[in-house]
Amino acid sequence: MADSANHPHQTHRLVLLPSGRRGDVPYGVTVLEAARGLGVELEAICGGRQTCGKCQVIVERGDFPRHGLVSRAEHLSPPDETERAYAAAHGYDLGERRMACAARILGDVLITVPEESQARKQVIRKAASDVLIDLAPAVRLYYVEVEPASLGGMADWQRVRAALEAEWGLDGLRIDRPALLGLQKALRAGERRDADGDLHWGITVTVWMGQEVIRVEPGYTDTLYGLAVDVGTTTIAAYLLDLRSGRLLATEAMMNPQVRFGEDLMSRVSFAMQEADGVERLNRVVIKALNDLTTGAARAAEIDPAAICDVVLVGNTVMHHLLLGLDPEYLGRVPFALATEGALDLKARDLGLRAVHPGAAAHLLPCIAGYVGADNVGVLLAEQPHLNDEIVLVVDVGTNAELLLGNKDRMISASSPTGPAFEGAQISHGQRAAPGAIERVRIDPASGKVRYRVIGDERWSDELTPGTKLGATGICGSGIIEVVAELYAAGLIDASGRFAADAPQRCPAVRFDGRLGELVLAPAEETASGQPVVVTQTDVRQIQLAKGALYAGAKLMMHALGVDKVDKIKLAGAFGSYIDPRHAMILGLIPDCDLDRVSAVGNSAGDGARIALLNVEQRALAAQAARRVEYLETGSHPDFQEAFVAAMPIPHASDPFPHLAVPSSSGSPAETDQRG
Amino acid sequence: MADSANHPHQTHRLVLLPSGRRGDVPYGVTVLEAARGLGVELEAICGGRQTCGKCQVIVERGDFPRHGLVSRAEHLSPPDETERAYAAAHGYDLGERRMACAARILGDVLITVPEESQARKQVIRKAASDVLIDLAPAVRLYYVEVEPASLGGMADWQRVRAALEAEWGLDGLRIDRPALLGLQKALRAGERRDADGDLHWGITVTVWMGQEVIRVEPGYTDTLYGLAVDVGTTTIAAYLLDLRSGRLLATEAMMNPQVRFGEDLMSRVSFAMQEADGVERLNRVVIKALNDLTTGAARAAEIDPAAICDVVLVGNTVMHHLLLGLDPEYLGRVPFALATEGALDLKARDLGLRAVHPGAAAHLLPCIAGYVGADNVGVLLAEQPHLNDEIVLVVDVGTNAELLLGNKDRMISASSPTGPAFEGAQISHGQRAAPGAIERVRIDPASGKVRYRVIGDERWSDELTPGTKLGATGICGSGIIEVVAELYAAGLIDASGRFAADAPQRCPAVRFDGRLGELVLAPAEETASGQPVVVTQTDVRQIQLAKGALYAGAKLMMHALGVDKVDKIKLAGAFGSYIDPRHAMILGLIPDCDLDRVSAVGNSAGDGARIALLNVEQRALAAQAARRVEYLETGSHPDFQEAFVAAMPIPHASDPFPHLAVPSSSGSPAETDQRG
Repeated sequence: MADSANHPHQTHRLVLLPSGRRGDVPYGVTVLEAARGLGVELEAICGGRQTCGKCQVIVERGDFPRHGLVSRAEHLSPPDETERAYAAAHGYDLGERRMACAARILGDVLITVPEESQARKQVIRKAASDVLIDLAPAVRLYYVEVEPASLGGMADWQRVRAALEAEWGLDGLRIDRPALLGLQKALRAGERRDADGDLHWGITVTVWMGQEVIRVEPGYTDTLYGLAVDVGTTTIAAYLLDLRSGRLLATEAMMNPQVRFGEDLMSRVSFAMQEADGVERLNRVVIKALNDLTTGAARAAEIDPAAICDVVLVGNTVMHHLLLGLDPEYLGRVPFALATEGALDLKARDLGLRAVHPGAAAHLLPCIAGYVGADNVGVLLAEQPHLNDEIVLVVDVGTNAELLLGNKDRMISASSPTGPAFEGAQISHGQRAAPGAIERVRIDPASGKVRYRVIGDERWSDELTPGTKLGATGICGSGIIEVVAELYAAGLIDASGRFAADAPQRCPAVRFDGRLGELVLAPAEETASGQPVVVTQTDVRQIQLAKGALYAGAKLMMHALGVDKVDKIKLAGAFGSYIDPRHAMILGLIPDCDLDRVSAVGNSAGDGARIALLNVEQRALAAQAARRVEYLETGSHPDFQEAFVAAMPIPHASDPFPHLAVPSSSGSPAETDQRG
Repeated sequence: MADSANHPHQTHRLVLLPSGRRGDVPYGVTVLEAARGLGVELEAICGGRQTCGKCQVIVERGDFPRHGLVSRAEHLSPPDETERAYAAAHGYDLGERRMACAARILGDVLITVPEESQARKQVIRKAASDVLIDLAPAVRLYYVEVEPASLGGMADWQRVRAALEAEWGLDGLRIDRPALLGLQKALRAGERRDADGDLHWGITVTVWMGQEVIRVEPGYTDTLYGLAVDVGTTTIAAYLLDLRSGRLLATEAMMNPQVRFGEDLMSRVSFAMQEADGVERLNRVVIKALNDLTTGAARAAEIDPAAICDVVLVGNTVMHHLLLGLDPEYLGRVPFALATEGALDLKARDLGLRAVHPGAAAHLLPCIAGYVGADNVGVLLAEQPHLNDEIVLVVDVGTNAELLLGNKDRMISASSPTGPAFEGAQISHGQRAAPGAIERVRIDPASGKVRYRVIGDERWSDELTPGTKLGATGICGSGIIEVVAELYAAGLIDASGRFAADAPQRCPAVRFDGRLGELVLAPAEETASGQPVVVTQTDVRQIQLAKGALYAGAKLMMHALGVDKVDKIKLAGAFGSYIDPRHAMILGLIPDCDLDRVSAVGNSAGDGARIALLNVEQRALAAQAARRVEYLETGSHPDFQEAFVAAMPIPHASDPFPHLAVPSSSGSPAETDQRG
């Protein structure tokens, strides 16, 4: 090996690509140490033992006048036997690639750190967004070796702790009991004899937040997974991620089994209050669902669920409390008092999450206010409206619509009681989004011809070969929005939502039952049940109530922020993603905005959970951002009723409350709950 | 109230008794604040609301030239209505006693803080010791009030946390989940209306280590208990203490139910290794025993066991590991590797302790080495040999004798494999210490007359009225030691332990069966079974083996420390306490020492656990002291066999290894286990 004592004062230039970091480094240091000194962290799980091969770098060769150096493979110490054996086994050229932990700097070098060797990889979240997330999870792997136990020597854990401090700078570590239970066997199973014949005990430990060893595995290992979960009122979505690469391995979703105790949040709260063991039952079924989703996702990804060491959870405030086993009673009435609103770090096992590793951590994102939950903080992380110059409105449409409005200067959050109509409930033939549900509707204004599509079939109802049918089972949320918007656009209903008297003449599918009109969307012969799928006058009213609540909430927020226009609208949530922005605009579901600046962003709450899973700093940013977000209580806002009434027409009255020139905040909120 | 603005620069002299602390304090501050400023902490659970009455102080009146002041009741602000009402209700004179939180200093005062008002009470541990322990437990009570929940306000826990920080300086607090689960109901149940008609929510929280809220109770409460437990190989002893007064409320003991899986440590380790679920079963039964002891102690003290918020546990290394569910396999063979040796803080519930409060803490004292456990650290805390100038030997006699030797300069610990003979096992008529067991023996050297006493009866066997009998059932450990010592003192056995050929002539109770002598200690007609209780030649040998191991261990330690005499010997442990020092000396169980400097100190390990329960600083001191104690591995020490052989005669060879002039530490320890 290079002897730096012979060159005590000599330094060489090191340039690292792609970061461009450069510096003069002492003769004889390893590339790994030198890079660290320049602030470039390389993967090196084995701690420089040339066993993991993670720290490989590319040695650029030639004259690089721009960097002011000549770089050659010979400017690094020659590979030893271990490195040569590794390179031969893995089939690469040592003139080009070297292990940073082994190669010592003997002259100027230009080195490229390939992405797979960077300790902090960048993960592109999704195509629809520019958000780049550094891979910096809360749990990390470290390999250490200790001397075998000896008479009168330190205990096994104390030796491991000392090694973790000495080799990785992890001081004051504690060890979780399940990990301690397995430590002694793991250490002895990881015994290896080195070239000199000395015995070493090697283990890979998983460390949470640099504070606690939560898993120990014999020898060198390399698997680390995490789970991000969005616990929605209706749907639970779980994302299984590889925490070493940031890759999404599997997505699993299922209906929230709490649905059988109540469709919407208020009925869950009522169930919790009225049944003696209501809270416990609601908690039990959701935890079981999380365990089932975990094993399902692990099966899909072909991994052991016990290798999942971190779980991030988001959900609205009621879901958040029920996950923790907290009684949601006080969320059900004014002043909607949360038990706790801060981010929470727990053991997954203490939540009852049994499928993951026994030492796995669980992190709940913080809540903002009594009705603006951790799911909305997830949306904040994913969409980052609080970092924008432009005024962005993010609408997470569900049983409660949760809204975020603002930009980098100020953010307001609110919750608007849309009711379950958008999820197909309280609609004559409404149903959940499932195969057979009508999700797309078109009415030709000229001919009055109606056509539709159902989930699970690419064809429109007028494209079928004779003798076949789509077998519609009902209408789901996006179908309801489309049918009402299309009815209005075709002039078959007026701004008040009433069916036009001449509608049957212009559209054969419209009929009157007494004074109330209705649209036969799918005649009996086209449906699964043999009964027609009908949209009644009452259904139109339900949609108007729901969209009026949402629109009124958005307008109150805009008013509070002092803006009369938003620059960008993002429709989020499993349901929001399926809404056609054009129909939402026709219906007056959302405030005016350039149509091409309205987009569906998918399950942003779940995306936020994934971001918090991949990057622990984002959790701190989320907590900071959540504290900055102001909460506007719309349900009991003195102007809500007025705004709501003004928002009922289609698309809406031109300005729901033109008399309000300045944001109103002086009036004390009425002590009533509009949500009940 | 006094207006300090009128006297902005004025100060008055305050002298506090009995501490003698004094200082000049600003006009108008309360006695509570002023005392705190002088480093005297007063009880004040209610945070100065004049409701708890804990901070009462006595106002001394008169001229005190020694303190340089004239003290008068009028030098304090007059009592307000609340204080007058409290004094009237509790029947004391406001001219003499005042609440420190209410009385403001308007002139020089001399104030006595009675013991009950001192936040740090001193608790006298036991009559036999001078150890004074400040009452400073790991868990403490704090009363706070918060504003009721309001729309858009902070969540309930965040308001409580802010109040705990503002009023008590507790920053960065977290809350345990069981406490969080009860927080909202407790807050609302603690609602009170103040004199101005404003609502406040008051709760008493229990805080662990100034870090975590582990219990919440509505309104103002005042109960806080702790449990100290010594988990012995044979006996488990639990002490229930009032953590507000330091008082011992109840002591409960039971046999360690692990006994049925093996009498001594090695057989427990074997059981753990040989049975598939051995560790789990050993863990389960001891945890169940702890739960039973907890409810038993609570019943005896007439308290709710769920009011126990802190548990301190000590035990030898095998007990320590089995308590944690750790496999003791590696403690069973060289090099006796502990999984962990540091002190441990856990949730009691995570250990399976279900009878205590769900948020209760559990603390395990550290271990010193593979065979010197947390029980010995308890002994260290209770006996404090490491703070002495004199050389003290503490012998905790049990199946393994654990020894501590040294003084403030250097401490050595060791474990000596005495085997179970001292506990009555492997002795022909040996039995555990229980009613009917012979515990005291006297042999008159002149007449050869033998008499004895049994546990549970005050009479000697020769004091009975004719026709009655003691109904002896066997011999317990202290009885065995006495009988062998008495046989030797009467010349019936010689230094080698052999029965003298003429013994039957000098003592009618001695007889020979072939070449082997034996003593009929209790003839058939005096015993419960109708069979004689006999001490055989083999029994004498067993005792010689046991005492030889212990003595050899002590001598090796003395040699290592470089002393040929100890100044003081303390016999500890449930069994050690029953040994008569004189007989121990005759037998050669312990090194030479002035007889009046040999004392039985009771269950020192349990006393140490109590000290650690009452004073959290003692835990840190214990951990420090444990790190300083050197461990001498006697079992595989190269000189052990020689010392052991030399220690077999009664009392012992004059010097077990005279050829060793200096402490031997160069020889590498043999890789054998003398314990098996």
